[in-house]
Amino acid sequence: MSIIVQKYGGTSMANSECVKNVAEKVVGTKRKGHDVVVVVSAPAGMTDQLVNRAKEITDKPSGRELDMILATGEQISISLLAMAIKALGEDAISFTSAQVGIYTDKNHNKAKIEEIDTSKINRALSEGKVVIIAGFQGVTKDLEITTLGRGGSDTSAVAIGVALKADEVEIYTDVDGIYTADPRIVPNAHKIDYITFDEMLEMAGSGAKVLHLRSVELAAKNNIPIHLRSSFTDTIGTYVTDEEEKMEEVLVRGVAHTTNNAKITIANIENTANNIAYIFKTISDANINVDVITQNYINKEGITISFTVAQEEYDRALTLSKRLGKELKADDVYGNEQVAKVCIIGVGMKSTPGVASRVFGCLAQNGVAIDMVSTSDINITCVIPQEDYSKAVLAIHNEFEL
Amino acid sequence: MSIIVQKYGGTSMANSECVKNVAEKVVGTKRKGHDVVVVVSAPAGMTDQLVNRAKEITDKPSGRELDMILATGEQISISLLAMAIKALGEDAISFTSAQVGIYTDKNHNKAKIEEIDTSKINRALSEGKVVIIAGFQGVTKDLEITTLGRGGSDTSAVAIGVALKADEVEIYTDVDGIYTADPRIVPNAHKIDYITFDEMLEMAGSGAKVLHLRSVELAAKNNIPIHLRSSFTDTIGTYVTDEEEKMEEVLVRGVAHTTNNAKITIANIENTANNIAYIFKTISDANINVDVITQNYINKEGITISFTVAQEEYDRALTLSKRLGKELKADDVYGNEQVAKVCIIGVGMKSTPGVASRVFGCLAQNGVAIDMVSTSDINITCVIPQEDYSKAVLAIHNEFEL
Repeated sequence: MSIIVQKYGGTSMANSECVKNVAEKVVGTKRKGHDVVVVVSAPAGMTDQLVNRAKEITDKPSGRELDMILATGEQISISLLAMAIKALGEDAISFTSAQVGIYTDKNHNKAKIEEIDTSKINRALSEGKVVIIAGFQGVTKDLEITTLGRGGSDTSAVAIGVALKADEVEIYTDVDGIYTADPRIVPNAHKIDYITFDEMLEMAGSGAKVLHLRSVELAAKNNIPIHLRSSFTDTIGTYVTDEEEKMEEVLVRGVAHTTNNAKITIANIENTANNIAYIFKTISDANINVDVITQNYINKEGITISFTVAQEEYDRALTLSKRLGKELKADDVYGNEQVAKVCIIGVGMKSTPGVASRVFGCLAQNGVAIDMVSTSDINITCVIPQEDYSKAVLAIHNEFEL
Repeated sequence: MSIIVQKYGGTSMANSECVKNVAEKVVGTKRKGHDVVVVVSAPAGMTDQLVNRAKEITDKPSGRELDMILATGEQISISLLAMAIKALGEDAISFTSAQVGIYTDKNHNKAKIEEIDTSKINRALSEGKVVIIAGFQGVTKDLEITTLGRGGSDTSAVAIGVALKADEVEIYTDVDGIYTADPRIVPNAHKIDYITFDEMLEMAGSGAKVLHLRSVELAAKNNIPIHLRSSFTDTIGTYVTDEEEKMEEVLVRGVAHTTNNAKITIANIENTANNIAYIFKTISDANINVDVITQNYINKEGITISFTVAQEEYDRALTLSKRLGKELKADDVYGNEQVAKVCIIGVGMKSTPGVASRVFGCLAQNGVAIDMVSTSDINITCVIPQEDYSKAVLAIHNEFEL
């Protein structure tokens, strides 16, 4: 018998009607003869609501106590879904992470799963039950409650899928798959049927916020396929897999973008490994997340460093960079609070030269200035002025006939 | 160092201001040099809200899944209170029942505490922390989540007090103590400073719904004093204890009443032990709770049985009784959907004869007909017409100069 892990997000659990709808889907899968394990998120909005309750008490809730309150959202979801499935005549049982034994490290609010005890799950499955597990949460060996960070339920689902050697992990969400570009910008963007893990990792890291990054890493590492699909329709979504033979041979799989970026440049500092390490250590110690980094060679001694951060970190990052610039005797430190990032992703690029030059040429033809460029085997990222982002995405989508 | 267990109910946790108020009280106690363990209920209204969410999914939620959802209310309370106490500069840590090890039997929705592991609590106390524990919930040895039934947090608090050999259990609520009668009926009713466990048991069983019955039984059995007091003032409330030397010597400690009663009579059936057992087994099997029972001798062979039930059970109980009456060849079966129960309670009655006759005389003088009478050592219960209950309570309160 095949084991299917299904994960339903907050919008799928938003109210009683939604929960009943999910129950129908689960029961449908069960009645096709599969063993079904369901991982659920908190009802939409509840996590924010709980964070707000904590914030009403104190500006700085302790990580442990925040996890204590946040874990309740998923507990409500699992219970309601178990009731709804039983009401449809299938047996079901809900488990918190602590009950299953989804063991994590001790990093509250951003814990990593270390081990999953599958004995309770397997026992319940062998009794013919649908097993419903609270996503997002974990437990340490000392029974401390942890959470995996926003979007963590995807990771819970994949980790459980790996532990159970499931045939497939279905991630149900409010979109019906991964698109070649944001359909709000590119009207003829189309749904991608198959995408490689590597491409999905680049997409997820580049603004396509449909899957938690860590869940894709985990699926890739364990080679377990993810089927990303809509909980509101029955259509096939996007398969994330390494079965490249099933895929269309394309140069570019898709174009992702983010607009919430700001850029900072530290101009002309002494070119030593120490200096560069010192800059990024200082910024990371201030808990600021750096995204794209480029480093330009000026002359034998001098280099210029540019990097992007989220817009809400811009002020802090700029202040810190100015201090660093002074310390390291930079010629200048300056920033741009509003830039966009456009990422062109496709495993086909690996073996086909000239993609980057087509991207640059296409952007130039459309009058889009390129601020920064950063590339990997399968990803070309361009940082551009924010106002040009939709023009850029549209132009590239057309250029590669996606 | 003395250990104090404090229990705060739902109204004390209703919103952020309330939680902060509770935190102030807890910190005040801690700073007087006590070790403090706090047991909390779900925020007021939340348990009902969760039950309603379950009812939206299904008419008959499974007991296990209902416990799963209900346990979240207390988990929210403990987390918020821990945050609020830490914000005031004292260290605090919250625990669910599963984390502590408050082990119960497997009876979902009405579980009984069997054992409490005090090791985590004692460790945290020895580290100078205020320990906050979720009331109402428990866990089985298999990590199944259970709940103790409505009002169960009182029982959690007393059980934890017993396990820790606490000096006192303080139950904070929205009233400032036990009164000689309901002040809404008897304007000169006054707060009782000390009351015995036995009297409190009779009061709790007779309509004074300030303490969960099982919590009083547990405190009595282990001789641990309960201090019932208001979370909105600092005044001393009512001590429930067996230290009779501290108490006023009174004949009657108080008058309790309930108005939600209905009475059923099965007239003239054959007087055999089997018949009586059969009647009450049948009624109990239908999950109907019987309160007062009286049995009248008619002649050598015949008896008449009367009993009271809650008004919402009246229709079912009457239908059942009519069936039983037919089966047992009763002369008649009839009922009264609206009766009241007045209970006169005091350990002084044990050693003083004539209290019952004073009660009957006083009711007669005030034109109150007595339907049923049932007495114990320290309790005289009269079932009377519902419309007369306030007249009866007032008259008895005056008669015994409470």
